[in-house]
Amino acid sequence: MDQHFPKSTKTRIVIVGGGFGGIELAKKLKDKDVEVMMLDKHNYHTFQPLLYQVATGGLEADSIAFPLRKIFKGQKNLTFRVTEALRVQPFENILETTIGTIEYDHLVIATGSTSNFFGQNEIEEHAMPMKSIPEALNLRSLILQNLEAAQIITDPILRDELLNFVVVGGGPTGVETAGAIAELKKHVLKNDYPELNLDEVSIYLIEGSPELLGNMSVQAQRKSEEFLKELGVIVMTNSRVKAYDGKVLSLLDGQQINSSTVIWSAGVKGAVLEGLNTTAIVRGNRLKVNEINRIDGHDNIYAIGDVSAMITEEFPNGHPGVAPTAIQQGKLLAKNLWNIMNNLPTTPFKYFDKGAMATVGRNRAVVDLHKIRFQGIFAWFTWMFVHLMTLVGFRNKLVVFVNWVWSYFSYDRGTRLIIRPYFKESNDESKLDKVS
Amino acid sequence: MDQHFPKSTKTRIVIVGGGFGGIELAKKLKDKDVEVMMLDKHNYHTFQPLLYQVATGGLEADSIAFPLRKIFKGQKNLTFRVTEALRVQPFENILETTIGTIEYDHLVIATGSTSNFFGQNEIEEHAMPMKSIPEALNLRSLILQNLEAAQIITDPILRDELLNFVVVGGGPTGVETAGAIAELKKHVLKNDYPELNLDEVSIYLIEGSPELLGNMSVQAQRKSEEFLKELGVIVMTNSRVKAYDGKVLSLLDGQQINSSTVIWSAGVKGAVLEGLNTTAIVRGNRLKVNEINRIDGHDNIYAIGDVSAMITEEFPNGHPGVAPTAIQQGKLLAKNLWNIMNNLPTTPFKYFDKGAMATVGRNRAVVDLHKIRFQGIFAWFTWMFVHLMTLVGFRNKLVVFVNWVWSYFSYDRGTRLIIRPYFKESNDESKLDKVS
Repeated sequence: MDQHFPKSTKTRIVIVGGGFGGIELAKKLKDKDVEVMMLDKHNYHTFQPLLYQVATGGLEADSIAFPLRKIFKGQKNLTFRVTEALRVQPFENILETTIGTIEYDHLVIATGSTSNFFGQNEIEEHAMPMKSIPEALNLRSLILQNLEAAQIITDPILRDELLNFVVVGGGPTGVETAGAIAELKKHVLKNDYPELNLDEVSIYLIEGSPELLGNMSVQAQRKSEEFLKELGVIVMTNSRVKAYDGKVLSLLDGQQINSSTVIWSAGVKGAVLEGLNTTAIVRGNRLKVNEINRIDGHDNIYAIGDVSAMITEEFPNGHPGVAPTAIQQGKLLAKNLWNIMNNLPTTPFKYFDKGAMATVGRNRAVVDLHKIRFQGIFAWFTWMFVHLMTLVGFRNKLVVFVNWVWSYFSYDRGTRLIIRPYFKESNDESKLDKVS
Repeated sequence: MDQHFPKSTKTRIVIVGGGFGGIELAKKLKDKDVEVMMLDKHNYHTFQPLLYQVATGGLEADSIAFPLRKIFKGQKNLTFRVTEALRVQPFENILETTIGTIEYDHLVIATGSTSNFFGQNEIEEHAMPMKSIPEALNLRSLILQNLEAAQIITDPILRDELLNFVVVGGGPTGVETAGAIAELKKHVLKNDYPELNLDEVSIYLIEGSPELLGNMSVQAQRKSEEFLKELGVIVMTNSRVKAYDGKVLSLLDGQQINSSTVIWSAGVKGAVLEGLNTTAIVRGNRLKVNEINRIDGHDNIYAIGDVSAMITEEFPNGHPGVAPTAIQQGKLLAKNLWNIMNNLPTTPFKYFDKGAMATVGRNRAVVDLHKIRFQGIFAWFTWMFVHLMTLVGFRNKLVVFVNWVWSYFSYDRGTRLIIRPYFKESNDESKLDKVS
């Protein structure tokens, strides 16, 4: 489709990406006399903090996603298009997309981040990322397919590959994923797979630095490690991955783990577009922005959230790649864009730290709210409450709540279905001959 | 995987298919001193009567599916395997599957039915079936992708293709699907697609015979047609499909409809296995069985539910292809198999007709309970209650109930997400360049 979307007489703000930042920005422009164009490659917003629960059979994919058209229902100045942005032509103020070229006055890159394999192609080819709903569903299918295959495979090395689950990266996603798989083992597998010797199932969490949850308090770090060990997770800190060929994971210190399921949560990189000032691309493939999120070397192109790096004295590596950063930047940018259009002074961004939290499992979470730190069951309820409230849409809140309450009392997971089997190119044959 | 699963000293009953009939049979054998082996190509049971709600964005796929392992939790005499049955070797009492060969004493074919295109390959290639969860999800994606594509395509013939939705077959599935798409148009599209002229969206229901719901009372037939027309569905009875090339649907009388979305619910055929007595295969590709569901020409192979045809004076075409038939046959076969093993007399099957019902939309359903017939809002609540109660699993009942209550008050559908885009081989390019 090679259409052209020329501007009208109104100022057109094009937002690429319907994540936390893009949505907040678009909504805050609701009553302004501008034309807002929101683009996303999906027709839905993904609540990324709960992807790991989709991957481990705790939640339906549909309950952590929300139709973008519905979010902007009634916003008359907004047009939404499902499309992928390809390249910026900054001198012509044109964005190239898969549905054609779109003119803009202001362009906001809110594309978020993808998994960072740090250039290790072999690992990228074989490890499972978990940054989108299809990726989370693939991981769910793979875990369940492995368990089914382990019912009929007797070769001990192949069984090891099927029943060792390795999570790489001890940030919140890694900790939460490892904990969720450990709970799956503890509460579900013993009932579902009576033939399986549960001692054969091992869950590893591998982290390069000396501690888990690097961005949290020492208290939270220690407690989360303790929680994981209580659940039977083998926590390996100070361990770095050297190679992974889909069957054997090799660590820098020479250790090897047989595993066909390596979940990669060791880092993210910005999902930048082509055509932007290349000198603005800094560590983590992020776009260096000034204090109002304008990209270095551009006049009318901005970046917010995970794809941006606003480097300040307080944040020499940029702000944390979390939802509150994106939301706060989106909100402020709406105001600043309006001020720029009206020749008014702009306000520099100031990050309001909302704290950090991570859940390891049932009754086990860690919460840092500035000086207030707590762990355990109350932290777990806090975590659930905050995540429920942040989910977009009443139906989603309700369905997730129902699922959580149900799981709490039944010790079960509702959605352990292999709806679309996942086949690795390499070794699908050895796993499950045919499932359709 | 070429394993062999030899029998132990116990009698082994192998059941192929975890649908309504297979589950009932396996459960009823729980306390018997036999070895039960349940095989299914999926790891879940599908509640087929609600597939159309998954396809039209009303329900999550996960809420109408239930893990088969969980259904048989604690049933010590049962082994479950995810595999596809390929071929029977009746003289050797061996079943060939994708995971190897399985010995049996008694084999029960409970494989259900698939869409019947009556040998029309071109239609089969282009029309959308709706007999499994992946198929229902593909249809959901296609409907939503078409609506997105219609936002940017201006060519009138292409727009017609995108915005004409054709359902072929006026049985319960066809009636329910056409009604659900009509409600999607009425309640959701006007909010989600403010740029779209709703008059361009047309829903056709095509039925070969003079009336809809052929198996129901005249009262129900008339009322369902009235309900559909109220919702704006173009009902075409006495119309037969001649050809469909993915773009133009041609009827026998010469009429043509431009449509890229033709949903096929015009008939089913039994999903028979190879290696069985071919003379037992009767109309609709079903297996002719005697009064205890034993397949003609076999001593120890049985068929129950949709894949079987028990022809009696009262049912010259076999029993209705509905859940109660399968459940009742599964239940009785459990008893009869036990009696056969113990040289006791068997009981012939007697169908208990539970009536029929179909829903057209909000407050609009038709119910026939023998002589008691009613339509409208009370019928609709009856339909919802019966379907809720028949759903397997408390969590599923709860989540579906929450979704229905929420939809009732909000006039909305929760799950209109294109999670896995569907690409027809033929004309994907003209629709949406890339969605991933």
